[in-house]
Amino acid sequence: MRFYLDHAATTPLRPEARDAWVAASDTLGNASSTHGAGQDARRLLEEAREQVAAVLDCDPIEIVFTSGGTESINLALSGLWRARASGTDAIVLPDAEHHATMDTAVALAVEGAVLRHVPVDSLGRITVDEFAAALPGAALATALVANNEVGTVNDAAGLSHAAAGAAVPLHLDAVAAWGHLPLSFRRLRGDAPAGAGLVALSVAGHKIGAPVGVGALVVARTARLSALIHGGAQQRGLRAGTQDVPGAVALAAAAVASERERELEARRLAGLRDRLVAGIRSRVPHAQVLGDPDDRLPGNAHLLFPGAVGESLLFLLDVAGIAASTGSACQAGVAEPSHVVMAMGFIEQDARSVLRFSLGRTSTDADVDAVLAAITDAVARASGAGSGIRS
Amino acid sequence: MRFYLDHAATTPLRPEARDAWVAASDTLGNASSTHGAGQDARRLLEEAREQVAAVLDCDPIEIVFTSGGTESINLALSGLWRARASGTDAIVLPDAEHHATMDTAVALAVEGAVLRHVPVDSLGRITVDEFAAALPGAALATALVANNEVGTVNDAAGLSHAAAGAAVPLHLDAVAAWGHLPLSFRRLRGDAPAGAGLVALSVAGHKIGAPVGVGALVVARTARLSALIHGGAQQRGLRAGTQDVPGAVALAAAAVASERERELEARRLAGLRDRLVAGIRSRVPHAQVLGDPDDRLPGNAHLLFPGAVGESLLFLLDVAGIAASTGSACQAGVAEPSHVVMAMGFIEQDARSVLRFSLGRTSTDADVDAVLAAITDAVARASGAGSGIRS
Repeated sequence: MRFYLDHAATTPLRPEARDAWVAASDTLGNASSTHGAGQDARRLLEEAREQVAAVLDCDPIEIVFTSGGTESINLALSGLWRARASGTDAIVLPDAEHHATMDTAVALAVEGAVLRHVPVDSLGRITVDEFAAALPGAALATALVANNEVGTVNDAAGLSHAAAGAAVPLHLDAVAAWGHLPLSFRRLRGDAPAGAGLVALSVAGHKIGAPVGVGALVVARTARLSALIHGGAQQRGLRAGTQDVPGAVALAAAAVASERERELEARRLAGLRDRLVAGIRSRVPHAQVLGDPDDRLPGNAHLLFPGAVGESLLFLLDVAGIAASTGSACQAGVAEPSHVVMAMGFIEQDARSVLRFSLGRTSTDADVDAVLAAITDAVARASGAGSGIRS
Repeated sequence: MRFYLDHAATTPLRPEARDAWVAASDTLGNASSTHGAGQDARRLLEEAREQVAAVLDCDPIEIVFTSGGTESINLALSGLWRARASGTDAIVLPDAEHHATMDTAVALAVEGAVLRHVPVDSLGRITVDEFAAALPGAALATALVANNEVGTVNDAAGLSHAAAGAAVPLHLDAVAAWGHLPLSFRRLRGDAPAGAGLVALSVAGHKIGAPVGVGALVVARTARLSALIHGGAQQRGLRAGTQDVPGAVALAAAAVASERERELEARRLAGLRDRLVAGIRSRVPHAQVLGDPDDRLPGNAHLLFPGAVGESLLFLLDVAGIAASTGSACQAGVAEPSHVVMAMGFIEQDARSVLRFSLGRTSTDADVDAVLAAITDAVARASGAGSGIRS
């Protein structure tokens, strides 16, 4: 038996999305071609754009389809920065952002960007006041709607309002939030002046049950943005390349399905998550729950097991058929301490002792039961003498 | 009935690729995750990488999966340019390249790149001597293996040899060539010195029957390249983002199938194409075939109909159920004269009077017959008085 509690890394493809992809994949024609076959493809594409726009509450023309969340974030940051007003070079960058944001900002620093770091509090939250204090004269600001590791939900409306007030363009990374929280681009943008306040919002398909390889960036009509990928006038000139019609159609199908069930599902997942957390804490009393206890993603449980090695925990749970995450970027196979947990004020050893369980559409009580059956032994073995198990 | 002769714009998804995509889409897990589900996904991904590498004759580690040909080209050009040796700023750029190349080069000019234009001859061919003359001290050079509009096949080996001799890194755009011509990265690279000669080669999935939204850039082990999309250490740090396992697996399936049938299919398509061209010329004697008559893509027929308006021809053929292309980039809905045809020395009016018919896997004699039945009337109506038909 396998128990998948890593939905934040990627969540299973929804049957609606798969069916939509397969049906659209029979469409012949490049959506940029003017002949009938091309126009059939374009019709499907524009319908998909309308559906995604309806879910995110923006104009269809504001949807720029991309290859995923990472590209969306790269396009937003580099696009806003390269099209910045002269005399502004700073990027306002909270300390607990996703690697896609941090690494893009660092790459832009090579081109002259100045990074203004904004701390997060002990719950991983961006304080609106500290964010606002960093804004004046910045080229752009960026912030997570919800932290992908510890699950803390930020005050996106407050951050947007602050950016509008400072006349700074803001990008919101909604990759982890989409499908779990209500998201209205229109409402978050409010009556911000042209080109300022919320101007861009990133989402990724495979976090809501669409295929990997498709995402979107909402770009406000008034935003000034340079393209990242050049070569054609597709999508307002912001994203060249033959448009992925089946991907867009599948994204739309997943978005619609996800939005329809969002509230009910959020309650269900929060219930499972609370049972998981309570069960772990009763079995491992010294475990600490990180992130905001109230304002958090419903499917996210993030725990610190002081003295245990996160990588060992991951390995021991995996042996028991349980997929979780240390919440840190081990993308190169090298386990690094979570920069998010360290930004929250924990020491490096603690930042290596965390586990993220993330629940989603296919999660059931059986997943919770499997973790509760395995966690006591795993923590014992991953702590102290047992922590060398992987050597 | 519909007759699709625009395979160069996009060609139908192969059943093998669709089946591979669907099967892989059930795989749970992010290929960067260390748990069992993640490792299952990684195994599929690495098998796909090996298959694509075998078809392109390179090392698996040299395959960087991207979202398509346009991203591959952008990554190659901006990546090589931004990682250039100090004191070199020039990009060697033939005049008949794809818009993805031209537009990326123009964007890099904003960052300081100097564009060294290399003319093509009247057949659309890059002359090795003229290319070689532009190379000394350049940051990088780029060239099409086969021209996507007029079908002319360049001397890729000669261009690569020249770049190696000049110690300049070369990118080859093989998007139009893949599936139609033999391509060996290893052989084209030869014994070029580290970081020079052929170091990068772009391909796109949807030109060989894989889905849209997946492609690859072959990047030589010794190449110095900056990433375009940042945010993780995936794929040698050259392309961040959750890896699209179903896309990669489908690309591999299409690559293997396409390579298996390539030689037979090239002969078949050349036969159909020759019948198409002969039939058109017997019906419209003043039509001229553009591009190299011998060294050309087997499925490509590119014709100039002096005095006819290409857009009108396209429209009239479309009414007869026939999909073709003017071969120019009308991506914004604005018909521009083909820059390729103009680079070949034709006047603007001629560059607006061309049609590209491109054949592929699903092409049959019926497609040729349909064009031959419609072309005489279409050319008559699109010429002279008839050319205002679209107004």
